[in-house]
Amino acid sequence: MNNHFTVHEIRRGAYYDSIVLMQLQKALVDLPGVVDAGVVMATPANKDVLRSTGFDLTGIDAKPDDLLLIVKGESEVTSANALSQVDELLKQRRSSGAAGTYRPKSLKAAVKALPEAEWVLVSVPGKYAAGVAEEALDLGQNVFLYSDNVSLKDEISLKSKAVEKGLLLMGPDCGTAIINGVGLGFANRVRRGNIGVVAASGTGLQAVAVGIHNRDRGISQAIGTGGRDLKAGVDGRTVLQAIATLKEDPETEVIVLISKPPEPALVSRLMHALKATGKPCVVNLLGYPSPGRSLGNIHFATSLDHSAELAIQLSNTHHPIPITYHPPPILNPLPSTSYVRGLFSGGTLAYETVLALQNFLNPLFTNVPIRPEQQIKDVWRSQAHTIIDMGEDDFTQGRLHPMMDQDLRLRRLRQEVEDEQVGFIMLDVVLGEGAHDDPAEELRQALAILRSKRPELRVACLVIGTDTDPQNTAEQIEKLEAVGAQVYRTVDDMVAAVFMQIIAEPPFSHPVNFDTAELAAINVGVETFFDSLQGQGAKVLQIDWRPPAGGNEKMMALLAKLKSKS
Amino acid sequence: MNNHFTVHEIRRGAYYDSIVLMQLQKALVDLPGVVDAGVVMATPANKDVLRSTGFDLTGIDAKPDDLLLIVKGESEVTSANALSQVDELLKQRRSSGAAGTYRPKSLKAAVKALPEAEWVLVSVPGKYAAGVAEEALDLGQNVFLYSDNVSLKDEISLKSKAVEKGLLLMGPDCGTAIINGVGLGFANRVRRGNIGVVAASGTGLQAVAVGIHNRDRGISQAIGTGGRDLKAGVDGRTVLQAIATLKEDPETEVIVLISKPPEPALVSRLMHALKATGKPCVVNLLGYPSPGRSLGNIHFATSLDHSAELAIQLSNTHHPIPITYHPPPILNPLPSTSYVRGLFSGGTLAYETVLALQNFLNPLFTNVPIRPEQQIKDVWRSQAHTIIDMGEDDFTQGRLHPMMDQDLRLRRLRQEVEDEQVGFIMLDVVLGEGAHDDPAEELRQALAILRSKRPELRVACLVIGTDTDPQNTAEQIEKLEAVGAQVYRTVDDMVAAVFMQIIAEPPFSHPVNFDTAELAAINVGVETFFDSLQGQGAKVLQIDWRPPAGGNEKMMALLAKLKSKS
Repeated sequence: MNNHFTVHEIRRGAYYDSIVLMQLQKALVDLPGVVDAGVVMATPANKDVLRSTGFDLTGIDAKPDDLLLIVKGESEVTSANALSQVDELLKQRRSSGAAGTYRPKSLKAAVKALPEAEWVLVSVPGKYAAGVAEEALDLGQNVFLYSDNVSLKDEISLKSKAVEKGLLLMGPDCGTAIINGVGLGFANRVRRGNIGVVAASGTGLQAVAVGIHNRDRGISQAIGTGGRDLKAGVDGRTVLQAIATLKEDPETEVIVLISKPPEPALVSRLMHALKATGKPCVVNLLGYPSPGRSLGNIHFATSLDHSAELAIQLSNTHHPIPITYHPPPILNPLPSTSYVRGLFSGGTLAYETVLALQNFLNPLFTNVPIRPEQQIKDVWRSQAHTIIDMGEDDFTQGRLHPMMDQDLRLRRLRQEVEDEQVGFIMLDVVLGEGAHDDPAEELRQALAILRSKRPELRVACLVIGTDTDPQNTAEQIEKLEAVGAQVYRTVDDMVAAVFMQIIAEPPFSHPVNFDTAELAAINVGVETFFDSLQGQGAKVLQIDWRPPAGGNEKMMALLAKLKSKS
Repeated sequence: MNNHFTVHEIRRGAYYDSIVLMQLQKALVDLPGVVDAGVVMATPANKDVLRSTGFDLTGIDAKPDDLLLIVKGESEVTSANALSQVDELLKQRRSSGAAGTYRPKSLKAAVKALPEAEWVLVSVPGKYAAGVAEEALDLGQNVFLYSDNVSLKDEISLKSKAVEKGLLLMGPDCGTAIINGVGLGFANRVRRGNIGVVAASGTGLQAVAVGIHNRDRGISQAIGTGGRDLKAGVDGRTVLQAIATLKEDPETEVIVLISKPPEPALVSRLMHALKATGKPCVVNLLGYPSPGRSLGNIHFATSLDHSAELAIQLSNTHHPIPITYHPPPILNPLPSTSYVRGLFSGGTLAYETVLALQNFLNPLFTNVPIRPEQQIKDVWRSQAHTIIDMGEDDFTQGRLHPMMDQDLRLRRLRQEVEDEQVGFIMLDVVLGEGAHDDPAEELRQALAILRSKRPELRVACLVIGTDTDPQNTAEQIEKLEAVGAQVYRTVDDMVAAVFMQIIAEPPFSHPVNFDTAELAAINVGVETFFDSLQGQGAKVLQIDWRPPAGGNEKMMALLAKLKSKS
């Protein structure tokens, strides 16, 4: 359709920090005459993305370890020109505070240079991560292992070593923690307090911490464990360490545990470990059937936000917070032909959304399925109602997490809007340390363009943030509301709003009338029921019932035959 | 071991009301010199029970439709003598209030005699029940179908007819309802109020109604539907009718829905139907993963008692009830070699108990399994920790429900106590209309004998009852406490108490110490994490990390080999 010219360059085996790649790609796109650009490690997934967003990769022989630079411009000269500026742009990239400081080349040297260090954060590519983490443990360091794509075998061996050494290994794929008031990885700025959190779920931990802070209470410690910690093999090694740690922590008066459903056999260990803390505990194993309302000191919550509220109620027994009922808002119904699509950066936020939507939207597809039939066939293409967690491996190999880099999400957003069947879009905006410094601005620009094409489209944004987060939560919300987005602060509120906007299939039933003030009944069978009705003042008649044909089966069959013929 | 003499009599094709059979059996056992007696329809299950409790049935050729009378006495004369009194005893049986009144022989005649009748209660044996229910519908009557052993096909056809005619058919196997203030079947006496209940679960409905009454609030209508109403095929016909009915009922301000997990495809219909009521709703689908805390006007409860409390909070928005935390009692631990056994008369009470216990007792077996591996092999014999719902078909064919007749439960209780591995026994006592008029007295006598043999045995009794129930709940509790039973009023409280008494397997983990006030860390990878830590005031060092061997896989493998050899 357009006469665009594409040029590319391959840098074999080149390693760059993902931040650098993201910044370079943005810088290339901003050059005059450039239509689009890609700067990615040439993994199959990343090449798929390029293809699906309009790049022709025919004849480009780049391997997963190669850096692929590709530029689409208005003319061949423009494109080539852009590409020639890559090295210059790399030099100009936003310099981190680390750039000017002493940067040791090895962990050993770093520990010597900062002897009070107790923590090592590891976010190198997955295939290198286990090695770095092991070295850190051997140097007596606790490890925050942000990297994903680490094998289960490596996870088990790293965690066994950590437990032996009395060290904590959070992760792999651990996105967040708050230790001694400092956020590691993605972490909202929340006040300190008496509630400790353990979470095998990154945005689960964030949503609970935010829920606590936004209710004017605080966090003692918040320990991430990696999403696989409660799977068979890993056996909750980090979760159990974390519970034991919060048990001993004098600042922690209430413990919250958040996870997707654990291996059922592990639940018993968790319950006994939580009981042994002797502290009030709140548990939300999203999607796991609740054992009940509570078990001794353990209370079961039904949502992330409910976990935050229950924790506060338990932390503050002298001033219980009453639960009040707010009638839900009446919203204009959405035409039932419309599909709902959700593009999430927070995995647990996506999961909790599926947990709710599956009960009123059909068919529902997702890459974080709760029931097998919900598994989406092609993560790059939505079908019917679709919820996508864009923090899953498919979308993060060789690139930053969508909380930092929204490029893929913005591309997918355009794709969704082109689908005329889509009537409602859900997006999450996770603020805090480590996250993009102005995600709402990028969304605002994209939504403004999309709105001009599809003014009737409804957009809901879930903003997870506090009043002290570096991005300024209030401003982020303003930007989103300025382009007509509905803004919600909890998954509970967002899914309820979707529910209230979706037209119901009409329930097929009519009311039955039992208006008469006094009940009158006929009893056939057990005579005590006659006595009971009479005792309650009802009018009642007992039938002197006998089995038809004296209970003779052959005779009964004969009678039934005669009756059906008559 | 004993020289007992057994005699029997078979009455071919004889029909007696189950109440009569129970009373006759008790009368026979009470005769001098009689050791034990059985008066049962000779179904395979009933013959199994007789055999397992010490009757020799060799050579007795009785068929399911035959009444089998069997007496074990101290001498042949005693036994024969007892048996000869059967007809005399049958005449003396407690006469129902119905005995002296006009008892029409047919439904048609009954409707003529009581033209204001709107309800027919059907509790004849399963194979006759569908026919009677259909006749009642054809006569324009709503039906309370207590009978079990009615086919799914018959249920669907009966309910289709009912919906067509604008009539309500509750059941089959519907144990309870409260219509216009009158309890049908098993029903606690509760005050009238503004909360309407729909339940595909008999004792679930009772527990919620009791929870509401015991918190000083009341019930508008409580509609049972039969436990299969939310299964595929039946498709919630009665539940949807009931919801539509409570929607229109001006007395009903809050709606509670209780069920075991429905067919997933039906959940969406339920949600839309509840939304359409426009009233605050409480849902507890026991064991179904909670969709969250709430969806618009629909609030999700985590236990039967929680459902009652939430309903009250929603019904009374001006005076919300604060939730307060009571630290659980510290109880002496039970030796971990002990097994827990539960013998329940209430199916939903058994199910809710399994839902909790499965999270801390392993292995757990039951005839109301939540996970397939929990299915008990032989319902007549406990293994490891076991929960038995004695209201299931195996135990009720041709005999009364255990809420009326505890004979089988008392026999099973003796069997459990003989097992030295058993350390804890759970029993439920469901009071109210239709139930046994003094269940605690029977249990007290049995427990007093058992306690003398096993004084260390712990017994927990769950008493579901109100201060207005005909049995006098306070007296029932006193009788149970007099023989040292722990008495609880909700499943929540009972399972928490069991949990607190069971010794934990020691969790294998040790706390990690992160005492240092200021966090110091080393960052390997994504540089924004360095900036974030520094910005939060932590001491941090960034490593100038490069992939080992420049990322060359072959070189890396070689390096790893060399390292492992060194």
